[in-house]
Amino acid sequence: MLMSTNLDQLAVTTIRMLALDTIQKANSGHPGLPLGAAPLAYVLFDRTMKFNPRNPAWFDRDRFILSAGHGSALLYSLLYLYGYEKMTLEELKNFRQWGSRTPGHPEHDIECGIETTTGPLGQGFATGVGMAIAEAHLAARFNRPGFEIINHYTYALVSDGDLMEGVAAEAASLAGHLKLGKLIYLFDNNRISLSGETAICFTEDIKKRFEACGWQVLEVLDGNNLEEIQEAIEKAKACTDAPSLIMVSTHIGYGSPKQDTFHIHGSPLKPEEVIETKKFYNWPVDKEFYVPDEVLQHTRRAVEQGERAEKEWRELFEAYTQKYPELAKELKDLMAGILPEGWEESIPVFKPEDGAVATRSAGGKVLNALAEKVSALIGGSADLDPSTNTVLKGKGSFQAPGVCNPNTQGIVDGPLGYEGRNIAFGVREHAMGAILNGIALHGGLIPFGATFFVFSDYMRPAVRIAALSKCKTIYVWTHDSVGVGEDGPTHQPVEHLASLRAVPNLVLIRPADANETAQAWRIAIKHQGGPVGLVLTRQKLPIIDRKKYAPAENLEKGAYVIADCAPEEPQIIIIATGSEVHLALEAYEKLSAEGVKVRVVSMPSWELFEAQSAEYKASVLPEKVKKRIAIEAGSTLGWHKYVGEEGIVIGIDRFGASAPGKEVLEKLGISTENLINKARELLGKK
Amino acid sequence: MLMSTNLDQLAVTTIRMLALDTIQKANSGHPGLPLGAAPLAYVLFDRTMKFNPRNPAWFDRDRFILSAGHGSALLYSLLYLYGYEKMTLEELKNFRQWGSRTPGHPEHDIECGIETTTGPLGQGFATGVGMAIAEAHLAARFNRPGFEIINHYTYALVSDGDLMEGVAAEAASLAGHLKLGKLIYLFDNNRISLSGETAICFTEDIKKRFEACGWQVLEVLDGNNLEEIQEAIEKAKACTDAPSLIMVSTHIGYGSPKQDTFHIHGSPLKPEEVIETKKFYNWPVDKEFYVPDEVLQHTRRAVEQGERAEKEWRELFEAYTQKYPELAKELKDLMAGILPEGWEESIPVFKPEDGAVATRSAGGKVLNALAEKVSALIGGSADLDPSTNTVLKGKGSFQAPGVCNPNTQGIVDGPLGYEGRNIAFGVREHAMGAILNGIALHGGLIPFGATFFVFSDYMRPAVRIAALSKCKTIYVWTHDSVGVGEDGPTHQPVEHLASLRAVPNLVLIRPADANETAQAWRIAIKHQGGPVGLVLTRQKLPIIDRKKYAPAENLEKGAYVIADCAPEEPQIIIIATGSEVHLALEAYEKLSAEGVKVRVVSMPSWELFEAQSAEYKASVLPEKVKKRIAIEAGSTLGWHKYVGEEGIVIGIDRFGASAPGKEVLEKLGISTENLINKARELLGKK
Repeated sequence: MLMSTNLDQLAVTTIRMLALDTIQKANSGHPGLPLGAAPLAYVLFDRTMKFNPRNPAWFDRDRFILSAGHGSALLYSLLYLYGYEKMTLEELKNFRQWGSRTPGHPEHDIECGIETTTGPLGQGFATGVGMAIAEAHLAARFNRPGFEIINHYTYALVSDGDLMEGVAAEAASLAGHLKLGKLIYLFDNNRISLSGETAICFTEDIKKRFEACGWQVLEVLDGNNLEEIQEAIEKAKACTDAPSLIMVSTHIGYGSPKQDTFHIHGSPLKPEEVIETKKFYNWPVDKEFYVPDEVLQHTRRAVEQGERAEKEWRELFEAYTQKYPELAKELKDLMAGILPEGWEESIPVFKPEDGAVATRSAGGKVLNALAEKVSALIGGSADLDPSTNTVLKGKGSFQAPGVCNPNTQGIVDGPLGYEGRNIAFGVREHAMGAILNGIALHGGLIPFGATFFVFSDYMRPAVRIAALSKCKTIYVWTHDSVGVGEDGPTHQPVEHLASLRAVPNLVLIRPADANETAQAWRIAIKHQGGPVGLVLTRQKLPIIDRKKYAPAENLEKGAYVIADCAPEEPQIIIIATGSEVHLALEAYEKLSAEGVKVRVVSMPSWELFEAQSAEYKASVLPEKVKKRIAIEAGSTLGWHKYVGEEGIVIGIDRFGASAPGKEVLEKLGISTENLINKARELLGKK
Repeated sequence: MLMSTNLDQLAVTTIRMLALDTIQKANSGHPGLPLGAAPLAYVLFDRTMKFNPRNPAWFDRDRFILSAGHGSALLYSLLYLYGYEKMTLEELKNFRQWGSRTPGHPEHDIECGIETTTGPLGQGFATGVGMAIAEAHLAARFNRPGFEIINHYTYALVSDGDLMEGVAAEAASLAGHLKLGKLIYLFDNNRISLSGETAICFTEDIKKRFEACGWQVLEVLDGNNLEEIQEAIEKAKACTDAPSLIMVSTHIGYGSPKQDTFHIHGSPLKPEEVIETKKFYNWPVDKEFYVPDEVLQHTRRAVEQGERAEKEWRELFEAYTQKYPELAKELKDLMAGILPEGWEESIPVFKPEDGAVATRSAGGKVLNALAEKVSALIGGSADLDPSTNTVLKGKGSFQAPGVCNPNTQGIVDGPLGYEGRNIAFGVREHAMGAILNGIALHGGLIPFGATFFVFSDYMRPAVRIAALSKCKTIYVWTHDSVGVGEDGPTHQPVEHLASLRAVPNLVLIRPADANETAQAWRIAIKHQGGPVGLVLTRQKLPIIDRKKYAPAENLEKGAYVIADCAPEEPQIIIIATGSEVHLALEAYEKLSAEGVKVRVVSMPSWELFEAQSAEYKASVLPEKVKKRIAIEAGSTLGWHKYVGEEGIVIGIDRFGASAPGKEVLEKLGISTENLINKARELLGKK
């Protein structure tokens, strides 16, 4: 272990002062954490972590998450000092300004070394668990004796706010169960929250709680003692079969006149307080963004060290490629996000004569077919395997070796170990969402997570982070409407389609039948730049006869004409999604038989449709056809955009009810009969 | 302690068989829990709880929550056996059918004795904490020596699924901190979840975790042993300064051929399995819904016992009224939900000359003025007191006596004890939401909870329960748009207005200035039948001159003409909400000066507007005025309903950015200039 030198102390002070100046210049930000926790971050960056500032995306780097994202100025200061080229001093000076790479809370930006978006508390904590899962899984699959190709740690700096959040509790419980030994969290234990001392609301025995969840818990009594911190981190690394929480006693706003009070949490200091603070540190009060040369020289060792580390890894990988060419090829493709050739060929085609099938069931079949080809696919459900149909058959259970026996795992089969591709998240939707983000951000894998659509509410903050961070995560949300039936309104989504359509950068797809489901999965696998949610039925739906109606491949355009009166112009357009498309087709048949010119538009995804050209959109929904009906078993909110002023929306703007699904749907107006009646009304035929 | 008799065993078997028949008749439901946990419920209903089936709403009753709501058939069977008149055998036979009072998961229905809506896991657990908070608070305020007017317990039956959910972890931590001694939870510890054994994902040391959170944890090794269960409950009651978790080892689906497997969790048995199960219990296999006379006689003792208990309480209350007439009057009004006379007079009026004020600040002033009069108001924030402005000044901190000292509580002042009306929820938005539900459902209080609007996502499942259960809860959601500024997109709501507007039965109000904020609070206090969300700005807004523009009292109609060109017909209508109303008024002034006939509609609440008559709605938005612009600093989703086909929506369909708030708003088009340009475009003047 290195002993602290004056240079170490000078470097720590530089971090503190740089963060402070960054915040003061913006006149906005959170000085409390950087001043208190700088030594922790210093030990991580200077003495612990493996990273290459010249290639921040190096696959085998250690990951660092600032879960307490409000301390962003600390992270930016470190990244600058440790040589991340995109994180310039100029960026620090533009902290919290339009167009900077230094937003108020860190946003995923791997070029700058920012691993994930944090700020909403608890998210970073749970996201890190996902990263550690990805590491453990890839290591189990690809490492071979003498070739520890995948071998890195996930570190996070977490705050009391993180630990109070339920998502962190869920993730902690799962991380302990999974014995993720390479997960090491430093808890900035300053006993102060935004609005007072933690004594007012957070007095649990944190050590005992984490031990109860299977963590090793270490304590550092002096958060300014670099050796003590380093020693604890080394103990954490030595414990390979449990995640570690290092509780470091720190002083929020250390060295400032507001030290140890909540006043220093989230507001800049006054100019005279800045001077007082700089004096405490014997820092030149007249300089801003001052970095002593010897400090920069010291911290920038990281550049050469990082390049060397990556070079050694590349050499190892080269040797590995010689010895295990196929494995190496697979891993290389995974790391690069390249899908195996011909992956799309595995997607099954469903025939009408196979009979009605729920889209959740069809989805399960498609997912399993894909998983055979696409070895990047890993995921599971929040304890709903038999209902969401998301088990990857024969692909094993992601478990720490020796934790459970094969008889315990329900309908999952195959190996029990980190190589397993089915993750049992437990009834922890929120942690599941954040863990998916962590797996996606780690790279190499395409994670999916399943639960009932109504419980997408539980994971919503993580979905937002995925959308904001452009994570490639896939949500399988089944039981998608009041068609759920007997389980009743607590389990029947109504508002969820509308409420998730409002989330920027989230693609939602609600397929109409088994073949649209297959296409939806195809899009989900291909889609780049954000999460995709598949919204699937509990109830069986007829498989649409694609010889008669337009092919399901059109789904990729978001909306398409599935049945038409062409070449004649439609008198009326019926727009439907998911389980309502077959009602629309029934109405189409009946109305057409009566001589009405009807077009039916299947509209599985608003977002994909909006991304099409204006010409395409107008070809599907021609402006001059004003008589339009939308039918969807959910909130009508937003549909007026597509039906226009003359149009009618058949939807559900109330909570559902407990009764057989078909009955609930009918009672709430989701029926062919009601659709036909409304169409006749609109056409003035009634 | 009563010793078990054969009659006890017969009664327990009756509960099990009644629940089983209920599920089988519906051919839908969850037999695992009722078969396993019936003895726990029996001990509670038969030997423990204080309730009056003839007056299920009796204020001083013990509360019972089936947090594991999927076991609803157990609850319904008990309520029938224990004499709740509305819970008839007919209702059991109509389990999960349209129009029944026996939905798939329990829905708040106090006439039937159903205290709260459960099913979404963890909610019941956290809701119960709210009920216990309400009890402790009212007891502290109203009990006097010899007059324990408020003196009841909150019980819940919780499952492993409940304990895995983060919301339960949050609530457990807070309940332990608050030392809620009258909170007693029985954990149906059957080690089986929906999709396998809990061993696959939930291996934490539950006892240790709850002890770490300040709970007393007791263990019952044989879940069929009534004495053992009863003894544990008595120990729990004896512990007055900590909540108790009783871990009861049970067997899911006890007595059925699928006992101890996940297959019995959520599906009815096959007919032959039912026979086998009934044989196990020596139960007549040819009878359905069979209740031996002696069992009914035994369980219906509850009716007389309950009437007596309530009578004694009423006598005590009478004596209390004699001795403490004012307190008694206040408590009576609280219990009946009657607001004090003249409460509305306390609402402040803000003047334009007072200068610009953020609606969060105005909201804080209004809340404080109201709290002086309306002693039912209790609440707090998720560790954001200084930002949400929701501290009730001088009203103390809701704390267990002796837990913390006055210096710890940030900006809260006044007494530290259960009589305090400021609740420090900690960074636990989700538990806060559920606790508000518990306080509201308990009765006697009007709870509010505050956080940043973007974090409404964290509490969304509880908001849904509030809406579904018609809870009178108030959410104070501040920092309502990208106007938040520097904190960046993680803290800037964009999709939240749209996504919450989609929730049935939730009233959302986004006031335009201080006076609309005052009116919004007035509505929130008065509103019955569901939750109200107040959406308030971080940034300052001018106070609208009400001599010049229409009065803020119009807010109660949801939308109103705030500025107009009457008697002339408008050429264009600008619709705005919240912080955009003053932009609309600026545009109005400029365009009017140019001779354009403009109407401005302030539309703080879609839900309140939709509840108005068609005439009123048409008077605000006359059909023939087709040129309309809506402006709102959030998702455009849904606005087309109000602007129509020719209209324009100025909104934000992307994530925000970190920069000063004004700059972000302007860059994203939320400016008077952009509004005027768009108006001119629409009018063909550009």
